[in-house]
Amino acid sequence: MAAYIEPKVLKGFRDFLPDMEITRKSLIENMENTFRLFGFLPIDTPALEYAEILLGKGGGETEKQIYRFKDNGERDVALRFDLTVPFARFTALHREELIFPFKRYHIAKVWRGENTQRGRYREFTQCDFDIIGSESAACDFEIILLIRTIMKNLGVDVNIHVNHRGLFNRFLSHIGQSEKSVEALRVVDKLAKTGADETCKNLTELTGEENARKILEYTGAKGSFTEILDKMTELSGGPSPESQRLFELRQYMLDYICDDTDNLILDPSITRGLDYYTGVVFETFMKEMPDIGSVCSGGRYDNLAGLYSKDASISGVGTSIGLDRLIAALESLGKLPAANKRAAAIACVNQDRAGLYQALAQKLRLSGIQCEAFTDSCPSGGNEKQLVKQFILAEKKGIRYVLIPGSNPLTDKITLRDIASRKNSEFTIDEIIKEIKKSV
Amino acid sequence: MAAYIEPKVLKGFRDFLPDMEITRKSLIENMENTFRLFGFLPIDTPALEYAEILLGKGGGETEKQIYRFKDNGERDVALRFDLTVPFARFTALHREELIFPFKRYHIAKVWRGENTQRGRYREFTQCDFDIIGSESAACDFEIILLIRTIMKNLGVDVNIHVNHRGLFNRFLSHIGQSEKSVEALRVVDKLAKTGADETCKNLTELTGEENARKILEYTGAKGSFTEILDKMTELSGGPSPESQRLFELRQYMLDYICDDTDNLILDPSITRGLDYYTGVVFETFMKEMPDIGSVCSGGRYDNLAGLYSKDASISGVGTSIGLDRLIAALESLGKLPAANKRAAAIACVNQDRAGLYQALAQKLRLSGIQCEAFTDSCPSGGNEKQLVKQFILAEKKGIRYVLIPGSNPLTDKITLRDIASRKNSEFTIDEIIKEIKKSV
Repeated sequence: MAAYIEPKVLKGFRDFLPDMEITRKSLIENMENTFRLFGFLPIDTPALEYAEILLGKGGGETEKQIYRFKDNGERDVALRFDLTVPFARFTALHREELIFPFKRYHIAKVWRGENTQRGRYREFTQCDFDIIGSESAACDFEIILLIRTIMKNLGVDVNIHVNHRGLFNRFLSHIGQSEKSVEALRVVDKLAKTGADETCKNLTELTGEENARKILEYTGAKGSFTEILDKMTELSGGPSPESQRLFELRQYMLDYICDDTDNLILDPSITRGLDYYTGVVFETFMKEMPDIGSVCSGGRYDNLAGLYSKDASISGVGTSIGLDRLIAALESLGKLPAANKRAAAIACVNQDRAGLYQALAQKLRLSGIQCEAFTDSCPSGGNEKQLVKQFILAEKKGIRYVLIPGSNPLTDKITLRDIASRKNSEFTIDEIIKEIKKSV
Repeated sequence: MAAYIEPKVLKGFRDFLPDMEITRKSLIENMENTFRLFGFLPIDTPALEYAEILLGKGGGETEKQIYRFKDNGERDVALRFDLTVPFARFTALHREELIFPFKRYHIAKVWRGENTQRGRYREFTQCDFDIIGSESAACDFEIILLIRTIMKNLGVDVNIHVNHRGLFNRFLSHIGQSEKSVEALRVVDKLAKTGADETCKNLTELTGEENARKILEYTGAKGSFTEILDKMTELSGGPSPESQRLFELRQYMLDYICDDTDNLILDPSITRGLDYYTGVVFETFMKEMPDIGSVCSGGRYDNLAGLYSKDASISGVGTSIGLDRLIAALESLGKLPAANKRAAAIACVNQDRAGLYQALAQKLRLSGIQCEAFTDSCPSGGNEKQLVKQFILAEKKGIRYVLIPGSNPLTDKITLRDIASRKNSEFTIDEIIKEIKKSV
């Protein structure tokens, strides 16, 4: 027995076989079409960067999960673990070459040594999009609208929950708890997971009973968008630029769809854990499947590239879609696009005629019909049994039509086998092209 | 001064800004359309694999260039350095799930710690395609035809040079030099680089004067495809399955294009350095730019996954295109697709109307027109200077039309600014959609 190496992939990594890869590509294409319609532009950055750049201030979970090593030149390098940090570095480096406001999208793989027991992958695809270089509320609105349109084009209706980090901080400041901001955010962030009682207990420990009650009153405000906003405004000490921003978003949405709607929901309990958000934050829930959690979250930040540039700070608003989670959700909903069926194949009746069969296939391809020429299982002259084998192969491959060429297929009639109906008919090649184009 | 991290990328790595990334995506899309028309299916594999799997028998250049490290679980892992080795591992692992003959393509990044002084990148994109599970000459022909069609669809005419590794080995065996096969191949492979004299000297050292003369007679055979093939057949001891295979390819090409042609050139000096080729090998040269060398090389192998499976050996034929080299060549030829120009933008006249402007933009997008709504530089009420700024922004962004909305843009006439002609006209939104669709 010859020694051989066991073929296996690393834990948390996956091969994509054709059906799944076709589905992934078609989803990505769908999303890219929407980005382009909105005037968003693609960028790409290296998979590998200086570890110092990716880790930034470092610490925490990231440091534990990142794939970091010394390269052959003894450089301290790492694989990117998200697309946000590389975008910040990209922006600092290319600031002079970009036209602001800059709208970009980036769909690419990232790597994290996650605990795979929680069903997480160590290699996964993210889709980020941001508008940077503008503080306008119109940009916040555009990102929200873009999320809505992307999901709509994937066949999914969503509710987008918004909040304002700055307004929450203003409220904390108003009740004299501004120095507790980070911890309070963290406790509130876990509200849905830990429940109201636990949250109340934790907040009481942090800020005292009276303040905990106020914080829960703020984050638990109920009613219509306007009623909640009024409550938040009142509790944070009256009208402010932050409450005005939320009011504008609501107003834009009304102007946009000319009708009251529940699509945009004000939810004062959303905080988004990440430190760098400073303005509007949002989460996106599928109407048919809210329980899987937010499929697209993000917000406004006021200093994207500050870590890499001592000059002007660049503000922006952006968000991230985890492609793998989205695919899992679409699959549960039965909304994954089916792998494109291939239209036609040329049966191999006589292997010596391979050139002719390719010429025939090429004629179909030039008409935009996917067509392959079978190359095997065909003893010279062909016989019924060999043809049946090729019909079975076509069926396995999801091919609808098989052309069975005679001696002069480019001029004479050809037998067309419809794999679905198991019927044969005789046509010229031009008639076949018309026939197939009608049905696929 | 705040401490900050210098924003830089690793040597040999690149950011892709929007214009280049759009070009790259459009090239890849063009190639994928051709693959699909031929019935080739996409797959993907992890960027990171067990080092043992990627290195296989190991040694040589690969071992020096590969990015290899210990992950957090102390596994010996590495970044893929090509797409062939992962495909071999993929095939061994998923053999039961694939339908043979299996036609796949794979376009993805690979990483090699190359010497960047030779203008090489350490992160680059490869495009591989193969047909595996068939020994048919029709598959060899299909790969050659696919290369030709891919290049044609990119606007490039090519000559494809073919040879047969097995026939060369048969010839060496015929002159009693079969044990020198690998070294002889290596010397001949460098023929174009080192010149005839040096090659003759090296061959003489290796095989003696008489044999060196015969080898050079074989590799230097001149004339038409048929004349060269006759010479090769004679020198290798008469007709053989290998010479028959070359004859078939020629015959298929004649059947295919119904005409004699120079597109397929028999070149007995091609060997393709890689050990695993056993049958037909080929190289592809751009007719307008032969000097940059082969843009797409490959061949037939008889045991793709042998390293990873003790069972059945899988033969196939395939090839690889280096996307970066192809892009450089297309750029020199002025054949790079231009970055898609965006069609339209909505000027921001009154920021309070952002919702309405998005509704207007969305109306264009739903008609398939790329449209963004400007979000800034617009003091309430708007004035000429602010509009001029937005025209300049549109021009920089390559946007052809700017819509200047009045109070009721969805019903009243709108001013349409043609950035190219610098002319304004008045239209309803439906007329504008027609107008823009006519011109882009």
